[in-house]
Amino acid sequence: MDAESYTFGPYKIDRSEVFYSTPLSFAMVNIRPVLPGHVLVCSRREVKRYVDLSADEISDLWLTAKEVGGRLEKYHNASSLTLNIQDGPQAGQTVPHVHIHIIPRKEGDFEKNDEIYDALDGKEKELKEKLDLDIERTDRTIEERAHEADEYRALFS
Amino acid sequence: MDAESYTFGPYKIDRSEVFYSTPLSFAMVNIRPVLPGHVLVCSRREVKRYVDLSADEISDLWLTAKEVGGRLEKYHNASSLTLNIQDGPQAGQTVPHVHIHIIPRKEGDFEKNDEIYDALDGKEKELKEKLDLDIERTDRTIEERAHEADEYRALFS
Repeated sequence: MDAESYTFGPYKIDRSEVFYSTPLSFAMVNIRPVLPGHVLVCSRREVKRYVDLSADEISDLWLTAKEVGGRLEKYHNASSLTLNIQDGPQAGQTVPHVHIHIIPRKEGDFEKNDEIYDALDGKEKELKEKLDLDIERTDRTIEERAHEADEYRALFS
Repeated sequence: MDAESYTFGPYKIDRSEVFYSTPLSFAMVNIRPVLPGHVLVCSRREVKRYVDLSADEISDLWLTAKEVGGRLEKYHNASSLTLNIQDGPQAGQTVPHVHIHIIPRKEGDFEKNDEIYDALDGKEKELKEKLDLDIERTDRTIEERAHEADEYRALFS
């Protein structure tokens, strides 16, 4: 991990929450994951829409998703992955910065598969509210998030 | 468009339904789109899981998604895109061949954003049933699908 800083839309992200990064992408833990191992992979450059990414950024972002998804699925003893970009406000995007939701999935984790997206939408709104308010009233403290990031960082060493 | 054939999992795809292709990926229209412009981008090689794709295949697949998504969003006067991979059966995948759902989104197209995923899950099951049965009892005929593919093919010329 280098000494660079990370931003997510207008927000500064604490390095302790970032567990993997490349020159063009980074992966971070969530304030309130919808399921264990629900993380975000973001472009380093702040762009709102997927179409604004360069070819190099797109390749790097989705190769990062492969690396992260494969490891987290195994780590959480899951058997599938949900990979999702809400690309623009009418698709449910709340933080205007391209990010992939990666969610390890298991049999029966949601009664109906699509319920995860309901949860995901709610969490994306919550995430924005938390970041907007910048007040520590989350279920998971920065220490908990940093601890989770430490666990995941070890998967890449 | 070359003379090659296209397969989607165990199914043969009619070339008339494919509107864009590269050496590693292809884009096809849907039997029953959840919204106008709902298409699938698939890897040419039949692999079940995202992690099984090579780096070149991943780059090509997601660059294809950028090309297709950008054009279809504009063509359908939409303002956002849903980009989704149901990677594995526990994530809702029914046809075991990596494919991206691309869905142009507009204000108010679904009352709640997440309802699109409910629809998408239903459609993925329907798609498999249709392909399994190989019986023409769809809302949209092959002619309608081929006509839509013609429209989209023109966007790339």
